[in-house]
Amino acid sequence: MRWQFIAGIIGILLIFLGFSMVAPLLVSIYYHDLAQNTFIQSIILTMTAGLILIILSKKLGSEDYINQKEGMTAVALAWTAIGLFGALPFYLGPEFTNFTDAFFESVSGFTTTGSSVMTNIEGASKSLLFWRSFIQWLGGMGIIVLSLAILPFLGVGGIQLYKAEVPSPVPDKLTPRLSDSAKILWVVYAVITLAEIIFLLGGGMPLFEAVCHAFTTMPTGGFSPKNASIAHYNSAYFDYVITIFMVLAGINFSLHYQMIRGRTLAFWEDTECRVFLFLTLAMTLVITWDIHGSVYTSLKDAFRSAIFQVSSILTTTGFATADYEKFPGLSQVILFICMFIGASAGSTGGGMKIARIIACFKYCYRELFKIIHPKSISHVKINNTVIPDEVLRSIMGFCALYIGLFILSSILLALMGVDMMTAFGAVAACIGNIGPGFGTVGPAENFAHLPAMGKWLLSWCMLLGRLEIYTVIILFVPEFWKK
Amino acid sequence: MRWQFIAGIIGILLIFLGFSMVAPLLVSIYYHDLAQNTFIQSIILTMTAGLILIILSKKLGSEDYINQKEGMTAVALAWTAIGLFGALPFYLGPEFTNFTDAFFESVSGFTTTGSSVMTNIEGASKSLLFWRSFIQWLGGMGIIVLSLAILPFLGVGGIQLYKAEVPSPVPDKLTPRLSDSAKILWVVYAVITLAEIIFLLGGGMPLFEAVCHAFTTMPTGGFSPKNASIAHYNSAYFDYVITIFMVLAGINFSLHYQMIRGRTLAFWEDTECRVFLFLTLAMTLVITWDIHGSVYTSLKDAFRSAIFQVSSILTTTGFATADYEKFPGLSQVILFICMFIGASAGSTGGGMKIARIIACFKYCYRELFKIIHPKSISHVKINNTVIPDEVLRSIMGFCALYIGLFILSSILLALMGVDMMTAFGAVAACIGNIGPGFGTVGPAENFAHLPAMGKWLLSWCMLLGRLEIYTVIILFVPEFWKK
Repeated sequence: MRWQFIAGIIGILLIFLGFSMVAPLLVSIYYHDLAQNTFIQSIILTMTAGLILIILSKKLGSEDYINQKEGMTAVALAWTAIGLFGALPFYLGPEFTNFTDAFFESVSGFTTTGSSVMTNIEGASKSLLFWRSFIQWLGGMGIIVLSLAILPFLGVGGIQLYKAEVPSPVPDKLTPRLSDSAKILWVVYAVITLAEIIFLLGGGMPLFEAVCHAFTTMPTGGFSPKNASIAHYNSAYFDYVITIFMVLAGINFSLHYQMIRGRTLAFWEDTECRVFLFLTLAMTLVITWDIHGSVYTSLKDAFRSAIFQVSSILTTTGFATADYEKFPGLSQVILFICMFIGASAGSTGGGMKIARIIACFKYCYRELFKIIHPKSISHVKINNTVIPDEVLRSIMGFCALYIGLFILSSILLALMGVDMMTAFGAVAACIGNIGPGFGTVGPAENFAHLPAMGKWLLSWCMLLGRLEIYTVIILFVPEFWKK
Repeated sequence: MRWQFIAGIIGILLIFLGFSMVAPLLVSIYYHDLAQNTFIQSIILTMTAGLILIILSKKLGSEDYINQKEGMTAVALAWTAIGLFGALPFYLGPEFTNFTDAFFESVSGFTTTGSSVMTNIEGASKSLLFWRSFIQWLGGMGIIVLSLAILPFLGVGGIQLYKAEVPSPVPDKLTPRLSDSAKILWVVYAVITLAEIIFLLGGGMPLFEAVCHAFTTMPTGGFSPKNASIAHYNSAYFDYVITIFMVLAGINFSLHYQMIRGRTLAFWEDTECRVFLFLTLAMTLVITWDIHGSVYTSLKDAFRSAIFQVSSILTTTGFATADYEKFPGLSQVILFICMFIGASAGSTGGGMKIARIIACFKYCYRELFKIIHPKSISHVKINNTVIPDEVLRSIMGFCALYIGLFILSSILLALMGVDMMTAFGAVAACIGNIGPGFGTVGPAENFAHLPAMGKWLLSWCMLLGRLEIYTVIILFVPEFWKK
């Protein structure tokens, strides 16, 4: 492990993070909200740390390729560092009383989880709320992907960083050059975000709130500057606009790019996208049927609430317009399961990803097929492409690790005195990067009351989920550190 | 598919089932409990059905090997038929008012699940309670295995039936001849059952109750002739005796045989058994710590309750001495997870089986190892034996199917108006062949209040669990029926 290279990469990213804090500083100046000092201090601390790391590091030469192990280590540590320094504006301001909460909120932001420990959101300064939304936007498409797109420094060996941050099971190389791919993804992402801002403004949402919500819809983040989340507006227009953009955010961004390039049937031709849209619709209809009569008297209201909640949980955004814990059992079971499924690979969503669930289904079917035709040789195909056995093995391993870590973390959280439903709900929500969970961390509650140790555990779950398990867990395998 | 052979096999098993009903008839005569007619009618109906099937069938010649497909079909249908005809003594007596409940109780018995719809157990006739325990004992080691042991008729091609009923992931052939292996397993099983009866009698339990409890401990069944299950006695002696026999029942029976044959370290030398005993102990200690102070004032009582509950759930027996739904969150989470783990392969317990969980862990570790050493070739070993890749694939497929069917069944049960916790708890308890679940089907409640459709669904879950998924689910794959 060439630590000097890794220090350099983290240093560059911290400098970059420091720069990004200028945005909320400007917001603070614009609104005169007295948080300027908080951001100035945060920028100084972050940049200083970044500079120290760069001074300690060895400059990457044009021949110095980073290997996979270094790439994974760098990305896992970089995300931890970003979580720590991104917590400074929370910690240094008056809204937070301890670093645990600030770190939780920061990691929840960057990983686009959206679980919050803030009990009085609307009482916070506007610039802090902006920062809270902005970090979700930065984390959504990947902060390393963004760096690859706009900074030349990470160019050589960046592929390992890219693979460690975006370990999609279905690799979609958009262009031969990595930095071009990264640029395309970020441009598409920014354009759709802008479109959402315009649609929200069109419905009469104030500019600040429209920007904040668009910044947390597109990364499937779910932070809202309103205590009551989207329910605050009680507007069918906003509900449907946000639903549509949540669904767009849950689709593989390379399909958006293909769509823009003129392949109009791109969504339809992609198996994962078809399944994602089908699941969204099917579960919406079932939940509409379930809550119509029992929760909503009008069918229109039931449908609007159902499609919002399904899109929000399945894409792992986590916005709320209703307290689904008051829905009947069927709706709850479906939403709980959605937390594990997640959105499409290559989208900004979390969870296990639909591509992996499809692969898992086909894997099972192949096993059944093998019993019927023991001598047959059969391959698992998605989008008419054979999935190599080793990729399939890795997907099954991912699913097993995901479930295993979910169970282990639930036990640890329960060990801290949390009840069963909350333990399962909170861990599912954090490892899936969703936001609200079940039990006492539902959409009408928040994570503030959990024990401090539990917040650190859940922060780790969010990182696990965001970096898709392997990149983080590998650092805990002793074999990894053997020479 | 040669249906005439399958009809013959099912016919033989029904005749056999009819004969086994003579035992409760004798109990009925002995206790003068007025249930004689019920059993006589049941015997006549069952034997007639068996005879009709045999008349319709073609006799298996010594050359007529049954193939795997026919074996699986025969076993799945035979277990359904046994569930149906085994329900007759329940249905024809005064205790049950409808066939759904009778079928549920019967399948719960034969599959050694132990979930009950009887609300007044002690009010039932002794002979019915005996039948209820006896069917668990018959189902525990496998009714087809028993037939192979004592009937000559199923000899040819019996290996396919055996494999479909006992699809252990770790094949342990005790002897070259299948019928000898079956005999050994049944003798070991009967001897340990007898030992338990003696121990229970020694503690002062009445003979009838001692027999009933031994008949439901060794198959990890969990039916009790007492409304309050083992809590009825409130005796440390009975708790510990039953705990020990539950643990014995959760161990691979071929190890018991090896132990009897003089390999005294058999338990210790087997990885699965070591893990099983370690898990039992570790979880007992954690739960003791958790419930001491909060539920029990004395450490001794806490330990006694903890080891009983852990053994009962982990071995999938389902006896109760306490309402674990009143335990703190940590204990509940651990017990809920135990429901999925289950006992050892080759034991009478259900669940996913510890051997599969170990294989799954090692599979994940291999994936991580592959990331660190991409060019390495590594095998998964248990007990120093390499597990072939195709077996490993089948195990991963089994685990995925188990989870998938758990989710699907939970959704279906919730669709019938059951709340989330009960839906998850009831399905986990039935597919794992445990007995009590969570929610409104906990150890202090029963399954009587569930909707009729839900009882049929759960009966199907029990069969799925008992025949370890593949044998049942394969019949629902259209490819299976193609010529």
